[in-house]
Amino acid sequence: MLSFIDPDEALRLVLQHTPDARYEQVPLAEAMLRVLVRRVVADRGYPPFDRAMMDGFAVRVADAGRVVPVAGEVAAGVAPQVEVAPGSAVAIMTGAVCPRGTEAVVPVEQVDRTDEGVGLPRPIVAGQHIVPAGSERGAGEVVVPAGTLIKAMELAVLAAVGCETVVVTARPTMAVISTGDEVVAAGTDPERHQIRNSNGPMLGAAARGLGLPRVTLLHADDTEDALHRALKLAEADIVLLSGGVSAGRYDLVPQVLQQAGASIVFHRVTQKPGKPLLLARRGDRLFFGLPGNPISSHFCFQRYVAAAVRRLTGRPEPAVDRGVLATDLSVRGERTLFLPARVVWSGDAWQVAPVVVGSGNIFACVDTVAYARLAPGEHRLKAGAAISFEWM
Amino acid sequence: MLSFIDPDEALRLVLQHTPDARYEQVPLAEAMLRVLVRRVVADRGYPPFDRAMMDGFAVRVADAGRVVPVAGEVAAGVAPQVEVAPGSAVAIMTGAVCPRGTEAVVPVEQVDRTDEGVGLPRPIVAGQHIVPAGSERGAGEVVVPAGTLIKAMELAVLAAVGCETVVVTARPTMAVISTGDEVVAAGTDPERHQIRNSNGPMLGAAARGLGLPRVTLLHADDTEDALHRALKLAEADIVLLSGGVSAGRYDLVPQVLQQAGASIVFHRVTQKPGKPLLLARRGDRLFFGLPGNPISSHFCFQRYVAAAVRRLTGRPEPAVDRGVLATDLSVRGERTLFLPARVVWSGDAWQVAPVVVGSGNIFACVDTVAYARLAPGEHRLKAGAAISFEWM
Repeated sequence: MLSFIDPDEALRLVLQHTPDARYEQVPLAEAMLRVLVRRVVADRGYPPFDRAMMDGFAVRVADAGRVVPVAGEVAAGVAPQVEVAPGSAVAIMTGAVCPRGTEAVVPVEQVDRTDEGVGLPRPIVAGQHIVPAGSERGAGEVVVPAGTLIKAMELAVLAAVGCETVVVTARPTMAVISTGDEVVAAGTDPERHQIRNSNGPMLGAAARGLGLPRVTLLHADDTEDALHRALKLAEADIVLLSGGVSAGRYDLVPQVLQQAGASIVFHRVTQKPGKPLLLARRGDRLFFGLPGNPISSHFCFQRYVAAAVRRLTGRPEPAVDRGVLATDLSVRGERTLFLPARVVWSGDAWQVAPVVVGSGNIFACVDTVAYARLAPGEHRLKAGAAISFEWM
Repeated sequence: MLSFIDPDEALRLVLQHTPDARYEQVPLAEAMLRVLVRRVVADRGYPPFDRAMMDGFAVRVADAGRVVPVAGEVAAGVAPQVEVAPGSAVAIMTGAVCPRGTEAVVPVEQVDRTDEGVGLPRPIVAGQHIVPAGSERGAGEVVVPAGTLIKAMELAVLAAVGCETVVVTARPTMAVISTGDEVVAAGTDPERHQIRNSNGPMLGAAARGLGLPRVTLLHADDTEDALHRALKLAEADIVLLSGGVSAGRYDLVPQVLQQAGASIVFHRVTQKPGKPLLLARRGDRLFFGLPGNPISSHFCFQRYVAAAVRRLTGRPEPAVDRGVLATDLSVRGERTLFLPARVVWSGDAWQVAPVVVGSGNIFACVDTVAYARLAPGEHRLKAGAAISFEWM
């Protein structure tokens, strides 16, 4: 078991111990924001025919500058019943099939209509305003590679080539066990010495924010028995235990996890907030011991649990962003500091306003959207200084 | 009716004609990523009692440097049964209520345990390691302002102050009417001259990506009757018509909307893609005529329809971001150009790689995440040049 490791090593261990993604097949309509596992190929060439790019006339190149009669018309979605003979034109709509004999399409704005037909411009370039059959993708060519996050554009491509279902990464299930005798459920009137359970609802909401469909919320008192009972109920790929991982006498999570057959990968990270963070594993199942302090719990979810979920679902790690401090900042600490921060775009840079406040004060963190990161040590920074941050 | 307006004017008109947000009450567990309409205040002071910030001992300041007996213990979540008399200490846990008489908390690491009790350090500062009752928020003070997007941290605050339901902006309903005789439904084997409906599924998915709960997908052939029938079925706050807004003979959407009592706000925008974009309004209902070209349709959704949805749900407009070109780029156009682009973070800047391709080729746009924006005119840009972009 590793202890007092730094936050980058902790993140590396989380990713290393996260099992490979599992797969499932879903209807295309439910594939938005899922990650494609099996690449998809074109069922035929695209476009499937020489496609007109403009409303106009299908013509022969040699008829440039002449007046030719209009032999018929092809609308989009219709099989042409006519062909383009030399000395004639066929009216054609955007998206329609170019009829046999078409050498070019002349846009409607470029012709003169006369009683004898249409006067064509000069010159006409072979192939103009035509997308040749198969030129966008050939039959059997990959149209969406494995590993692609399916957004609206990718979904359009998948629909175009006829996918009705797709194989995507499965989303992990999650269970959240709030611990702590001082915590009472929402809907209960707390006594003066009690506080309401905010970590459970927060972690559940954060999981839903990551698109997880099944999140189970449980509570356990600070006894070994209660924790064991809750762990038995928490049948999920990722189990979060909120509270009970500090050094106190009632902090039973590490020993209970070991009794339950999990091995502890690490416990305690040289970071503030979130020093007591614990990662354990049993088979393909991950257990995170999150500090009971709500800001610590929030931070550890955003930085470590979310990373495991992204890895499990095949999504990339988000970029670390950079901005400038919106205000002066004087802080010091022995551990890497992550400060909740408000971030706004000023027109040419992210303006980062960290919240420096007692560790339990979630009220001060309303509207923060990122964690600004500072190395251990003393920092006396002026407004405008560069600062790294990670989006929540 | 305005025509050939520029893209910024078009966006302004979309926002101007979007009605005010409607409200609804939802359980807190369903409030993630919703926008709070009615501010929430603290039901009591926070913390509700003088809270110990460390595991340690509640003591009197005057006992600094002395060995004092331990008179009892207070765990978190328990009403103290003991008080801190002069010359004594009470063991206390992080988060617990400081018992009567507490002047400071001494962390457990700073005491010497002896047979007579605990040896206290010197000096001890009054109030150390105590969060005073009401110091984070006073009873009745605002804890989450109206207009706040509820993320995990805000949800924790709302849970902490006892919210079981919250009043949030309602999400609009949306209907998508795909038009075009050439388009066949997914699951149908298309003839060679036919293409599958990709705009309908794409727009539906894009709407779901914005968190809209109810999206109705319809199809209409290119006849006035069919369009009127589809419009009658499309009972939604926002109705999208895909196709049928260009200048062709089969582009019936503008006249049908007017026949149905809608007034056209604008038609045609000096942008590429998306020139034929149309906005109409009837009462509080918005109708967007989107071009049938899939990239144009995608772009118009991301830039204009999404803006209306954000306005309707009280969410802020996203920032226009800036990056640097990943490759040389030579383009020219009479209209403002928006190019689908791949964007990656290089460590200190967004590297933007626009896709320059025929307007119908969605295959080339797989994995793009933004639209790079260029003013009308000629551009011969080198890799590394600054470029603005809007995230999809």
